[in-house]
Formats: sequence, structure tokens, C-alpha cells
Amino acid sequence: MLISILTFQGFNELDSLIALGILNRIKKPNWYVNICCPEVSVTSMNGVTIMAQSRLENIEKSDAVIVGSGILTRDIVKNPEIMGMLKLDPAKQLIAAQCSGTLILAKLGLLGNVPACTDLTTKPWVQEAGIEVLNEPFFAENNIATAGGCFSSQYLSAWIIAKTEGVQAASEALHYVAPVGEKEEYVERAMRNIKKYIF
Amino acid sequence: MLISILTFQGFNELDSLIALGILNRIKKPNWYVNICCPEVSVTSMNGVTIMAQSRLENIEKSDAVIVGSGILTRDIVKNPEIMGMLKLDPAKQLIAAQCSGTLILAKLGLLGNVPACTDLTTKPWVQEAGIEVLNEPFFAENNIATAGGCFSSQYLSAWIIAKTEGVQAASEALHYVAPVGEKEEYVERAMRNIKKYIF
Repeated sequence: MLISILTFQGFNELDSLIALGILNRIKKPNWYVNICCPEVSVTSMNGVTIMAQSRLENIEKSDAVIVGSGILTRDIVKNPEIMGMLKLDPAKQLIAAQCSGTLILAKLGLLGNVPACTDLTTKPWVQEAGIEVLNEPFFAENNIATAGGCFSSQYLSAWIIAKTEGVQAASEALHYVAPVGEKEEYVERAMRNIKKYIF
Repeated sequence: MLISILTFQGFNELDSLIALGILNRIKKPNWYVNICCPEVSVTSMNGVTIMAQSRLENIEKSDAVIVGSGILTRDIVKNPEIMGMLKLDPAKQLIAAQCSGTLILAKLGLLGNVPACTDLTTKPWVQEAGIEVLNEPFFAENNIATAGGCFSSQYLSAWIIAKTEGVQAASEALHYVAPVGEKEEYVERAMRNIKKYIF
């Protein structure tokens, strides 16, 4: 299982790295999670530079792709070079978009008539692209999921784990990262958000 | 306000970067948040390399310090060179420790007889250092706070903002990062966790 987390210049740290941390709770030899970037390094919306673990060429062979979020997404969707490299195929891949990542899926024509989740700032841009935006943290249909609000990246990650490794594995991954003393509450809420979209 | 987030080799991505994202919600000219490392770059427990934004020399002049967590903390507390550079002073600084960061505060002798929070893995090591570990996500006394479980880094960050910029500013920062459709629930729970420790 190769999971790529698309991370662009100006990225939101929470969106890419909460997902990375949770997905890496699966400790299996063929489970690979990587930060996938258009350049050798990217600098976040708050000035943190991280090194790419793979480049956009990696997307096509990924089993799951999370499209991360950031403050430059509206420029990215106007960049034909980057957009042309985002070879996503929901027939073969799990595709998940976080916050402004939903705008990328919309512009790629992957959402069709399916409603979606995004953050409050990106909402008007996704609506302008013709997509109904839900007042929900998470929504999925078949192999495409979207989430809104940084902390809902836990739901995207849990959905990918649940779809591939099962509900129990997703619960355990979430249990690990949840606050001490609130673990059951966190896991229960997350599973409530994703369970109806798993099968 | 200079806030340094201590981030070591083997760091937990969620612990350092959730805090960084939330603290950067304060948009004021004198509000600086930085990833502070013993080396020019550090690589996380899951192989993500980030560039330091400052070095350990920066700690002494910081107004607030978050001691991040990671898989190498038990080695770090045995490293006299690093431990000697952690010049923390709760009389002048807000000091916050996340998960295994609590072990560093314990070994520096900063916790005294005060109970603390940490993650479930680090718990026996903190207890061995003579500190009572609470089954709670967050605890603070005066200028020292500790948190347990990756997602409780939101409580550490909110505590720092509430202590310096007020409860309203902390609520707004949390509201931004919380999942769409669950924002009130997230903010209410966070404020319930920190409010009694603010004044």
C-alpha cells in the first residue's frame, strides 16, 4: 500500500502531517506513507520547510492519495504544469482531499455531482466550481473522500485505514493519537463520521 | 512574544506541528513561533525531515517554550550536551511539555512535586522519575503545563494563547483548526480543559 500525501508550497502543516502521523500507525512491511511534492522541498504557510519524500511522478502508482491543503491552492489550480501531473484515478485509487485540496479535485473534474467538504475559507471557491459544500467534517462516495477543517484530517486517514485494513485498525490508530482521558470519545466520534462511508 | 517549539531527532510530527499551526493563528507583528532544534535539520519518527527555524541557543530568550515529543526522548535525557542547553526558567517563561517532553521537564527538575500529563508509552518513565502521572489530557500549575496524547497539543497551544492574548483569542485559534460542523464542540472541550489553569 503506497499512500502519497500531496503537499504544495504554502501548505497547511496540520493537514499534511496529522494524516502522515496517523497513517504511519499501521506497522506493516508493505505500508508506505510519503510526503509528495512538486519540488525537492516545500515551505509551509507558516514558514516551515520540509523535504519531499517523493515527487509528483509518484502519484500515478500510489494506491491512495491525500490532496493536502494550503494558502496557495488557488494559484496551483491555475498552474497547468502541476495540474497536468495530478494523474488521479478513482477507479484504481482511494482519493482523499483535505480543506482546499477539495478545490483541486473539483477543478480536476473528479467530484462530478457529488457534494463535498472543505474549510470555511475555501468554501466559496469550491461552490464557484459548481460543487455543493456540506456543513460536515467528512463525506465520501465510493473511492473519493473530502474533509473540512484541519482536525478532520484524522477522519480522512481513518477512512483510508478502515477501507484497506479494517475498522479495528482505524480505531487503534486514532486511539494512539487522541488525548489521554478522551481517547474513547475521540475514537467514537471519528468512527461515527466515517463508518457509513466504508462499505 | 517569542515561542520556541523544541523539536528533536525522531520527533512526533503531530506534537510539534499542531502546536505550530495553532499558535500561528495569532497574527500580531511581535508574535513569533519557531521550530527550535539541536541541529540544522531534524528527521521525524516517520522519516520526514524539517529544517530548524532556530537553534537551542534561542531557548533562553524565548517567552514560551513547548518541549516536543518523539521516539528518542529517552536518549536525549541522557545527553548532557543537549540537556545542558535547555535553559528553561518558569519564573520568566511559560513552559509546556507534550507527551515525552514531560520526561525532559522531569529530568530537568522542573516539575518538583507537581503531577503531570504524558502519553501512555512515556508514562512509566515519568513515574520512574518520581512524578505522579494523571489520566488527563492537560494539567498546569503556574507557568508550567503538560499534555498527553498527540491531539492534546491543541490544549498546550490554547493555554499559551489564553495566558498571553486571552481566552477569546485562544477560542478563535481553536475554532479555525477544528473540523467543520464540530467547531463548537471542539472549542468547548478545549476551553473546559484549560480554563481552570489560566488565572
